This record gives sequence, structure tokens and C-alpha cells, in this order.
Amino acid sequence: MSILPPSPTPSLETPLLRFLKETHARFGPLDEGEVASYIPELGKADPDHFGIAVATTDGHVYETGDTGVPFTIQSISKAIVYALALDTLGAEHVEATIGVEPSGEAFNSIRLRADNKPFNAMVNAGAIACCGLISEATGEAAFEMIRAALGAFAGRTLDVDDAVFQSERATGDRNRAIAYLLRTYGGVRGDVDLILDTYFRQCSILVTARDLAVMGATFANHGVNPVTGQVVASNYAVARTLAVMSSSGMYDFAGEWIYRVGLPAKSGVGGGIVAALPSQLGLGIFSPRLDAHGNSVRGIRTCAAMSESFDLHMLSRRGDVRTAVVADYDFRTVPPRPGRQTKAQEILAARSGAIRVLELSGQLSFATMDYVTRRLTDPAGVPEFLILNLHRVSTITDAGLSLFIGLIRNQLPAGTTAVIAGVEGSSPVAPQLKALRDQGVRVRIFPTYDAAVEWAEDQIVYRHGGFSQVGVEADLAGQSLLAGLSLQEISDLSRLGTRVTFDQGARIISASEPPAKVFFLLRGMVSARAANDVRLATLIPGMAFGELALIEEARAADVFAETEVVCLELGVEAFRTFEEANTRAASRIIRNLAVLLAARIRMATARIEMLTG
Amino acid sequence: MSILPPSPTPSLETPLLRFLKETHARFGPLDEGEVASYIPELGKADPDHFGIAVATTDGHVYETGDTGVPFTIQSISKAIVYALALDTLGAEHVEATIGVEPSGEAFNSIRLRADNKPFNAMVNAGAIACCGLISEATGEAAFEMIRAALGAFAGRTLDVDDAVFQSERATGDRNRAIAYLLRTYGGVRGDVDLILDTYFRQCSILVTARDLAVMGATFANHGVNPVTGQVVASNYAVARTLAVMSSSGMYDFAGEWIYRVGLPAKSGVGGGIVAALPSQLGLGIFSPRLDAHGNSVRGIRTCAAMSESFDLHMLSRRGDVRTAVVADYDFRTVPPRPGRQTKAQEILAARSGAIRVLELSGQLSFATMDYVTRRLTDPAGVPEFLILNLHRVSTITDAGLSLFIGLIRNQLPAGTTAVIAGVEGSSPVAPQLKALRDQGVRVRIFPTYDAAVEWAEDQIVYRHGGFSQVGVEADLAGQSLLAGLSLQEISDLSRLGTRVTFDQGARIISASEPPAKVFFLLRGMVSARAANDVRLATLIPGMAFGELALIEEARAADVFAETEVVCLELGVEAFRTFEEANTRAASRIIRNLAVLLAARIRMATARIEMLTG
Repeated sequence: MSILPPSPTPSLETPLLRFLKETHARFGPLDEGEVASYIPELGKADPDHFGIAVATTDGHVYETGDTGVPFTIQSISKAIVYALALDTLGAEHVEATIGVEPSGEAFNSIRLRADNKPFNAMVNAGAIACCGLISEATGEAAFEMIRAALGAFAGRTLDVDDAVFQSERATGDRNRAIAYLLRTYGGVRGDVDLILDTYFRQCSILVTARDLAVMGATFANHGVNPVTGQVVASNYAVARTLAVMSSSGMYDFAGEWIYRVGLPAKSGVGGGIVAALPSQLGLGIFSPRLDAHGNSVRGIRTCAAMSESFDLHMLSRRGDVRTAVVADYDFRTVPPRPGRQTKAQEILAARSGAIRVLELSGQLSFATMDYVTRRLTDPAGVPEFLILNLHRVSTITDAGLSLFIGLIRNQLPAGTTAVIAGVEGSSPVAPQLKALRDQGVRVRIFPTYDAAVEWAEDQIVYRHGGFSQVGVEADLAGQSLLAGLSLQEISDLSRLGTRVTFDQGARIISASEPPAKVFFLLRGMVSARAANDVRLATLIPGMAFGELALIEEARAADVFAETEVVCLELGVEAFRTFEEANTRAASRIIRNLAVLLAARIRMATARIEMLTG
Repeated sequence: MSILPPSPTPSLETPLLRFLKETHARFGPLDEGEVASYIPELGKADPDHFGIAVATTDGHVYETGDTGVPFTIQSISKAIVYALALDTLGAEHVEATIGVEPSGEAFNSIRLRADNKPFNAMVNAGAIACCGLISEATGEAAFEMIRAALGAFAGRTLDVDDAVFQSERATGDRNRAIAYLLRTYGGVRGDVDLILDTYFRQCSILVTARDLAVMGATFANHGVNPVTGQVVASNYAVARTLAVMSSSGMYDFAGEWIYRVGLPAKSGVGGGIVAALPSQLGLGIFSPRLDAHGNSVRGIRTCAAMSESFDLHMLSRRGDVRTAVVADYDFRTVPPRPGRQTKAQEILAARSGAIRVLELSGQLSFATMDYVTRRLTDPAGVPEFLILNLHRVSTITDAGLSLFIGLIRNQLPAGTTAVIAGVEGSSPVAPQLKALRDQGVRVRIFPTYDAAVEWAEDQIVYRHGGFSQVGVEADLAGQSLLAGLSLQEISDLSRLGTRVTFDQGARIISASEPPAKVFFLLRGMVSARAANDVRLATLIPGMAFGELALIEEARAADVFAETEVVCLELGVEAFRTFEEANTRAASRIIRNLAVLLAARIRMATARIEMLTG
């Protein structure tokens, strides 16, 4: 690892851009190697051109040097056309025709395997066979299909250098020999000239170093072009193409390459190299001077410097599966949610271990999700309600989802209900989770953490209290905000208020209006929602809302009736009137409010400590 | 990907254990292949033995079947001995003697490369050369060194099967031929018989499938044995050994293996296979029936089933660099921290953009850290104080650290101070960050987020207010808790209190004592700390602490004097006395307390929303 030297003039250039510029300056003077000349048109390339581009999996492209200069893609096309064949013709068909073993020979070798198949799709024989398979399946449309696939990987429409194409065709006898040899054994079927025309045209497609970087990033991003967002190849085709690139992408330099540089890569005699590090980045380099293996000299040096400086070897990976679980707690250690009726609070306090929450984060992959499942193998630790909060989960791989579903379906005991929080309807996992529920698996899905916890708490209160709080009219004396007041004081207060009813869905409080009223919820359920319609909290009878009106001058949230709702509504002015006659009681209310707020702070602090601990 | 069928009897078995048991049951009946017999002792193995073990990078080991049955490690030792040689003899020396290209031939081939070097360390020629290098360097200690290395990878002391050793030695003529051929070209120096004795003994070391899984997990865990925690190989040696395993570990089946299964692996004729997926898991399988390539038949099938069912191909990786940044905000969008003196609050409110916070999470790798740096390329978005909260960062790779240091050192403009939060003294990055500071780079390091924000705020107040709040005695009238009281009321209250002084370091409040006093901080600085000594908040003059004593009966935290401190101390009883005479003022204080608590809730809620949003 290199630590970069200090800059004399600090700038906002990122360290990576700085590194790329320094690398460009460092290898720019290298004039080893020769421009390819066996195809006469290629000999016309400017040997001094040198461009380096890096595309990230979130779609940013770094560029330095001649990254906009077009050149012909040549053998780099083989990788993308192989992926195209795997996806469009079926992997079995392609794998039956073309091998996946390194050949140990030069790219233009005519030697086939003992069973007369091409060694792999990265040498000319395999690439011609691959082109033949596409031609056989699509006829005259083959070339346009190939051009479209390369364009989809690059994220733009690509042109052909007709002069190079004509030159390749005029001097392509070795490839003709390979194609005819393949046809002897059925490795190519149909008109050899037509197939070779498609192949020569494919090699003559014009790209830039920037295009190669985006192509690499598309491979690195499991087949999704990170600039356009388009899905251009399947995960299967991407992984298998990268495997063949790893073992055979750099011709007879492949073993050294995978050992020293450790990045799946493909080079072309036009001077390009594309490299891809899965889930990290794509690298595109253009520099036409080639070494004896046919690889770009400055390209090889740049890849090696990148890999060495930043430890990018594909087999050098670190990770800690434990970071998938941000927090794991039940309500024995977290203060109770304030504001419920006393009876409900007692029920919940007596069953504080009945809900367990796992807050998950990052990527749920095979290894991280396996770790999550291992936290739930002790029967004593598996509660009535297991809340899995996925709100902070960025991605779930197929394997992660398989283990997740296995957990819910097979691992949890029959008495446990899985409660999945943080899954919006638009989430990619929502359909699978809903399908599980339709199959009778005990799983509930909520968009927010708060809604999940409150639903689970309501269930516990209902199961163990024998009643649902929502449907029963609460006694005003049970309101937490009025604790310690005499019945006379409560009666006096209630006479100053108005009993009001709201239909389901009605907006009871608007955050944009001045706070003029406090509401004591007597029957039904309300929800407080933020401006973006995110549900902040759900309240049930015995709880007050809008209570900050007693001390503040702005509303924090909208409040909606989730069911038909009955409230005692008390104007702030009425409270002031009450205060004049009942100073002690009014002080007590404010004090109760402070106590409730202190409890909410403890809860919020505990949650922050768990999220950041 | 397979979704597992529902279980008739749900249990707490994790989905992966279930899968391993099912796989064991599925391939158990397979009786293809033959036990190796070219070494007579090996022919005595029970062909029906079949064990599968998976070790995770957090040190859990799953086992099913005959995972405790010992068998000889044979060629699997080659991988670990190669890593040992790279680490102890120097990579250059080893790489000059042994190649890294696939041979395309059987493991016991005598053919060398054109330059008379062994193709790679996974075939017998390369392994014997490797054993020779260790013998040359360490003499008679060679075998014990090898045995210790294998034991360190397995996490226990390993024995030798003397009968197999004698049998190998008695029938080892092909290996003798290879060794003598190597000596012809200097690939082996010294006494061939001694070297081969070490080599045969190395192959006769006894392991179990469980041992192989732990060895694999040690490779997967960048050379740290996840069960023992011991560092047993360098990251360099691990990545390079895995590279050679990828291209040559499964003999002449390597290309197919990397294409189809995609896990670096090594097999032995004893019936073992070890496989490693970096950062995910190690796999160990024992089943002695071998196919024509010399690989365990059920072992190959098990690896393939694992890879296919869970998409474990090493080049099939997903990730989203953006998840590294959990939250990115300044104090324009977050409510101000309550409790400061009015003047300081005004200064901070006018400069709410002067502090920007990036809360980072998970692994800071090359790609994720590059993403972080790209959020800071717009000069307009880079503030006076950039707080980077690392509290939730699980690991920083070397490359991630290099970019992190590059960001602080070269990317940020001269007017910006980097404030690193969440770095304890014991953190592995603390020394590098402190070294930066010693080099004059503007960076400050704090163990907690709160300490970092408060320090930055103090700096802003000091820079723009021209005074430090800490050293100046605050006027009691400026206390937020006393807002709205008349000077007479404040004077009455202060007469009921006592002016007290504390030395630096004194404990002013103990969480374990009943709350009997509230303190108004007049001069100096105090910190509130949780039971585990984590600093919760820092308070400066103008703020009160212990104020919940006015409404509650338990303390939440210890409070310590960070400097010499002057307070007005007010007993709860004295407050009750004040209340009797000054009902309105006392109510106002409780109301002020509620207002401060409401502000703290808003701040906490905003922080939770950012952490979970």
C-alpha cells in the first residue's frame, strides 16, 4: 500500500483521481513495445496515446489522458460476445461448443483441444466459434446484435472503423484457416466468409478508454451498466465470463496475471485493456504499444500499479459478517414506550422479553445472513415476536434471501411470529415475503420500525390482557398526562374541552397550522406522520397528542385518524383558563409532560446507542 | 438458487445447517470412484466415510457426517506450505524457483516448464521444490515448522500417520525421480532423501474435515484463523496462494472448476477437499472415493452444490458502495443542540453550515472510501469542520485507509479541519491518524460523536464570538432553565442554592445516588458519562445538569468535572421551598425543562431518522 505524498497545492481532487494522474505521468514516458502491425491499418495508431479511465459501480467515471480517443476494440470484444452468447443461446449450448480451459498458447494459435473444441472463448478459435454460434442463431442480424451488446456495455452507440475492417478482412488468412479447421469438426457451421465478416467487423468496433472502463464496471456491477442503469447481462454470464477472463484473458500471460495483478481482464491488439473487480470498479486503458504477448505495455503497468497500490487482488478480500447486525435487543434492556394506558404498560412490562429486535444493515449476503440465522439458534432466545428491521439493508443477494426465507419458514418455532420492518411495497423482497404469508407462514410486514413494534405490542396486550385497547373507550383518568390530578380537577378540565369524533383517514392536526389544541385520545387509533408521509408513531387510547402545544409554538407532524376516533379536544386558551383556577393541577400536567418527554428521550437515546454502538 | 422446501418439524437449525445435512443425505449414497491405492496404506480407508464442515469467518463451524474422522492431508498441504514459504522465505525467492502457471497435466507429472522450473506449487514437482526451499533455509527444523504451520491453520496440534508415511516413502519412486530432475536444474538443492522425508511426512499429517474447514476459513479470513484469532499468514501470501489454487488447485480439472464452481480449492488423494471463499467461508470435505483426476467424487459434488445453491462463485459479487455513508448532513437541517447560552446559540445558528457530518458505516474499502471522497469534491460543500464519524465502521482496509489519509491530507482545502469521531485509542487506525496530526495536518480525533460536535461548536463560538464560553463565568440569568424568570425570582432562587467549586476530575453526580440536587454550571466544563465510561455529552456554562431531579427519581448518568468547575447547586428540597413561595416561577422552570427536553427529542429523532433513513 502506498500512502500518497502531500500535495503542495491542496485541492478537492479525490485521492483516486490524484493517483490516476500520477500514474499517467509516471508511465507516460515509457516507450517500450510496438504498435501492432500485422493488420496494416492498426500500424497507423499514434503510439504515444495513453488514456486511463476508472468507472465505479455507482456510475462515476474518472478519466485522465487520452480517454476520448477512439480505437478498435479487437479481442476485448470476445469477452462481451461470449457473455452475449451465454445469455441468448443458452449456457449449455455454448459450453458444449467452446471449452473453458487455458490454452497455454498465443491468442492466434490454431491448436484445438484433444476433442477438437477451442480451448476457450478468449482465443481466436473460441471467439470465432462463438461468433459462429450467434450467426447460426440469428443469421444476418448477428453483427447488429453484437454491436448492440457492446454498446449496451459501453452505454452508448458504437461505430465501426471501416478501414480497419477492410484491412482485417484483407489480411485475415490465419483466422480463415482457424474457421475452416473448426468447420471440419462442426465447431463452426454455415458460411465461413459471412461468419468471419461478422467477426472482423466485431473486432473493428470503435471504443475509447472511457468506454472500456464502463464496460468493466458493467461486469463489476453484476451485469447492470452503472451509468445507464440498464441490465445488459445475467449474473451467470458475468461470473462465467470473468472466470474465463481470469484464466485466459491475458493470453499466455494469464497465470502470472492472476497471480500478480489478480483482476479479471481482457486485452486487445488495438492497445486496449479492460479489467473488472466485482462489486468495486471497472478499469479501461488505452495505449497502443504492445509487448511480446500482445498486451499493452503501459496498460499492464497501470493495472499492476492499481492492484498493488490499493490491494485490489480479487482474492484479497476482507469483511466482517457481524456488521450485518447493528443491534439485537429486547425490551428488557430498552425503556418502555411511554404513553400507553397503565394496564397495557403493566402487561408489556411483565412480558418485556416477548419481542426481540434485530436491526440489520448493509448487504445480506450468504455469509452475513448465515450469521443472522446463527443468532437465533437458542430456543430460549427466540421470542413470541421476532422483529427483523431491514430498513438499513442495502441489498439482499439471492443466497441471502434464500437463507432469510429458510429462517422464517423452517428455523423459527411455531409460536414465533416473524415481523419484518422497513419493507416498503416497492422493495424487491416484498413480493417474496408476501408470497410466504400467503402460504400460511407466520410473517407480518411493515414499512416502518415503529409500526412493527407497535403492532407487536398491541398483539401482546391483546393476547395477555384479553382486550384490544383500540376499541374500548379509555377513561380520562387513565391518561398519562393527567396522572396525579384529582377526579374534580379532571372533571373541571374535561368541561373546558369538547368531545370530538373523526372519521377514519381524517387529518386531525396539520403541521402547518399553529398549535392551538391538545387532544386526549379516548377511542380508536391515530398516527403521527412526517412531511414525507412516513409514519412516526401510532397512538392508542390513553395517550395524548398535540401535547407540545402546551409549551411550544410549532407543530412537529401531521396527525391522522387511522380508525374512527373519539377525542377530548382542549384548546390552549382553555388550558390557560384552567391554569388560572387550578395552578397546581396545571403545573402537574406540565410536569407530567416533562416526565413523558424524559422517557421518550431515554428511549431515543437507547435507540441511538444501539444504532451507533 | 434453491429455496428450501418447508420443514415438517420446524426447528432452530439454521438454513445452512439444514442444507448441509440435506446435501450429506443426498450425496451419501453416491458410490462412484475408487479409494486411492497407489500408496498401499491409503487403500485401507473406509470408502463410505463422508463428512462436510463449513467454518465461517466469525469462527463458527458447522459439521455434518464424519467430520471428526482423521485422514492424511496429502496434497492439500501444498497450499499451506506454499503460503508458509512465501511468508518466511520471501516471495521473490519462492517465485524465482516455482512458477505460477497451470500445467495442464496430472498432479504427479514429471514435466517441467521450458525454463526447467516447476509449473506451480500445487503439482508434486512444485511442492517438492517448495519443501526443498524450506529445508534449505531451516535444515532439520523444516518438518516441525511445516507441522506447526498446518496446525496454526487448523487451530490445533496435528499428528502424523506413521504407517502412511512409511508407505509413501516405500513407494515414492516417482517423487524421487521428480526431486532428482529438479536437482539437475537447481530447483532442489541438498539431500534429496531428507527433503523427500520431510515431504512424505508433510503429506502424512492427519486432519479432519473440520480441520480443513477451519484451514479454508483462515484463507477466507485473510490469514487470521477465525477460531483461534491467531494471524497465521500474510494477506499477500493468502491472496497469491488462493490465486494458484484457483488456476491449478484441482489438477487438470482447474479450468472447469473455476468456471463452474468458482471457489479456490485444493484436493488431496486422502479424500479431502478444502475450499475458501474470501471474506465468506471455508469448506472442508472428506470422502475417500476419487475420480479419474484424483479429486473426491462426493467432495466435488458437494462444492458444486454449495456454489450453485448459494451463488458462491468468487466472481459473482454484489455490493453497493453508497451504503458506506449512512448520513451526510450539516446543522441547517438538524435542530440545534439545546442548552447553550443565547449568545453562543446565535453564533451557531448563523453558521449552521460550518459543520458537516458524514456518518460512515461498514467496511471502508477501496471502493467505498473512494465513494466517500467523491461526496467532497464540490468546494461549496466543504465546510470549516468536516466531522467523519467512524463509530460504526467495522474495518478499514489498507487501500481504504490510504484514500482516507489522502482525503484529509490532500483533498480538503486549507481552511477545513477534519474531525474524526468514533476512534478510541485502541482503534487500529488511531496511530496513523495521530501521526498525521503530528505532521501538522489539521485533524482532530475524538472517541465519541458528541465530543466531536461539541468541540467543533466550541471552536466556532470561539472563532466568531471572540470568547471561549468555558473560561468566563456565566450569568445565572442566561441559564436556559431560568428563561422568563424575573431578576428578583432568580435572586430568590440563587439565595436558596450554594456556590460550589469542583476540582478537575471530580465526580459531581453519581448515577447510583438518588437525585437530590440540580446544578447550574457557571464556569468550566463538565461531562456526563454512561456506566461504561462512554461520554454522553459535554456541558459548558449556561447549561444545567442533574435537572431531571426536579421531576424524576433516578439519575441517568455520572457527571464529572472536565476542568475546574463552578456551579450553583440547588437541592430539590430547596426548589420545593422556592416553589411554595414562587409558584409561577417554579412552574416556569418545569415548563422550561419540558421545552429543553422537547428540543432534545427533536435532535434525537432527527439523528435516528438520519441513522435509519
